[in-house]
Amino acid sequence: MVSMKDIAKVCNVSESTVSKALKGHPMIKLGTRKKIQEVAIKYNYQPNALVESIQAGCSKTIGITFNSFYDSFAAGILTGACERLYAAGYETMIICWDILVSHEAHVFSRFSRRRVDGLLFLPSSRIPSANYLKELRDFHNPVVVIDQTWPGNEFNYVGSDNVRGAVLATEHMIERGISDIGFIKYSVVSSGIERWQGFVDTMQKHGLPVKESWCIDVGGIPNYGYELILKMLSKSDRPEGIVCFNDNCAYQAMSAAYELGIRIPEELSLVGFGDIMLSTLMRPKLTTVKQFPDDIGRRAADILLESIKRNDEPYVPQSIFMPEELICRDSVRRQL
Amino acid sequence: MVSMKDIAKVCNVSESTVSKALKGHPMIKLGTRKKIQEVAIKYNYQPNALVESIQAGCSKTIGITFNSFYDSFAAGILTGACERLYAAGYETMIICWDILVSHEAHVFSRFSRRRVDGLLFLPSSRIPSANYLKELRDFHNPVVVIDQTWPGNEFNYVGSDNVRGAVLATEHMIERGISDIGFIKYSVVSSGIERWQGFVDTMQKHGLPVKESWCIDVGGIPNYGYELILKMLSKSDRPEGIVCFNDNCAYQAMSAAYELGIRIPEELSLVGFGDIMLSTLMRPKLTTVKQFPDDIGRRAADILLESIKRNDEPYVPQSIFMPEELICRDSVRRQL
Repeated sequence: MVSMKDIAKVCNVSESTVSKALKGHPMIKLGTRKKIQEVAIKYNYQPNALVESIQAGCSKTIGITFNSFYDSFAAGILTGACERLYAAGYETMIICWDILVSHEAHVFSRFSRRRVDGLLFLPSSRIPSANYLKELRDFHNPVVVIDQTWPGNEFNYVGSDNVRGAVLATEHMIERGISDIGFIKYSVVSSGIERWQGFVDTMQKHGLPVKESWCIDVGGIPNYGYELILKMLSKSDRPEGIVCFNDNCAYQAMSAAYELGIRIPEELSLVGFGDIMLSTLMRPKLTTVKQFPDDIGRRAADILLESIKRNDEPYVPQSIFMPEELICRDSVRRQL
Repeated sequence: MVSMKDIAKVCNVSESTVSKALKGHPMIKLGTRKKIQEVAIKYNYQPNALVESIQAGCSKTIGITFNSFYDSFAAGILTGACERLYAAGYETMIICWDILVSHEAHVFSRFSRRRVDGLLFLPSSRIPSANYLKELRDFHNPVVVIDQTWPGNEFNYVGSDNVRGAVLATEHMIERGISDIGFIKYSVVSSGIERWQGFVDTMQKHGLPVKESWCIDVGGIPNYGYELILKMLSKSDRPEGIVCFNDNCAYQAMSAAYELGIRIPEELSLVGFGDIMLSTLMRPKLTTVKQFPDDIGRRAADILLESIKRNDEPYVPQSIFMPEELICRDSVRRQL
């Protein structure tokens, strides 16, 4: 990379003359200015954004945390967020929880040292610890929490309307005449707790029992609890339909059913959550509650950029729950 | 974020005293030093990495370009690369080609302005234009090109041994007694050209004809050319086996076969390339040439970090072709 020093040498002037000339300073003679600017273009000189950051007191950089590059839901959020951030002239500094050995390992101080102007925070896969929240609070610049939240979260938050999504899924099964309904829970994250709530509310509203042995919790278990699902489906007393925490759980349930020779949807109906690419690859294709991660990412980035603009003003944190949509495919049986 | 100025105010000293005290300067009295350090810890002061970057002449930041957050092969490369970069104390600045409206839009000057110390460059999905290569050359700091290359590439390169991979795939079909073999090409990228080469070489070695009507090029066509594949398979004169550019192409071929009632592997054998998650989700499970994107990412990051270390020394660019492995699953028929 060519520096101002290099340009000064080529033009036989001082570095400060180069600096002024590149800013179009009238104190520098027009001829000299032109020559310096030509040399800068010729050698592809790029102003030092680090210096500009320090002078302006803002780095035009946003920190983003997320779980895994392999997570296609996070991919949607990142795509939407980066679209907005790039358009606003921001760069992104990305930290992936799965790769840093310890989830509590000073992630936020890394961002602070780099003076990022704000943070898009997709929490790691569990409710954050007190220690970790302290680090987040010490960050001081604007924060938007995405997808997962926790009791008493005092930051801006953008996620899905998980309760409503689970209501849609459960109502759909009931409309199709299915009343023996189980649920695959994922209780270690807020979205899991909210979806469970939506399921329980809907069952109660329709006077249907929530049967404990048909509701298993696969939170934090490898392969989304395939073995547990297989065990539940092996029993003669099994549900006719299962509302699943997400599409990955539904895929495990479908694989277990395939293994046991249980036909989908004739003998077992499934609804997923997310509508990641997987849901159209499964056979039968999965009926699922579609989320819009790109929109979530865009909205989160917009709120963050607004917060940065009015940095010093006190603000009331917003919580935004983006709507979902039920996508009917082939994994729920038709009305008998 | 707490600044040195804030600490100076709390401690009732000058900012320069704070700066010296935090560096442990002996000129500052021990009591004052201790007090300042305590306040810094209490308010979670973080040194400004931007200032340190300018002083040191290196930003401890690596730029990374790639195509899409949804691409699970790129996800592997990013995971491996970030693992090494984080461990070496580097942060990453990420630019995603798909999101920037124009692929030629000054991506490298964005990195230059941020003074990134090096670049991991996954090219966008076509052979780079001259303009784009000029920008890349003007970047000056070390570059490692990943996965795709181009004629006359003068940078370090880490990718897969694509020729060898296609040889493995083709030999496997021939070993299983299949001789009417087609190929799904993807000629707009170097890996596509290399895999085609491996296929042609192997067919010729065994004295088998390469039949033009069985070899279709789906490069740059939406859905990896599903319609073209369907058309080819609709004809009575169709191959017994197809070696596919990648797992996505194989998935399209499998879908087309399903649509036409052609049984896999009895009537049509398929081999994919990549072994992305998709390949184990397909039914039958896909036989494929497994690549190791995490290893590619790690190796590329290692080479970049070494190049940064010996920055001023002239170097001979390395080209590294990482080995693959044939994974036999259920999409190639057994020997008759």
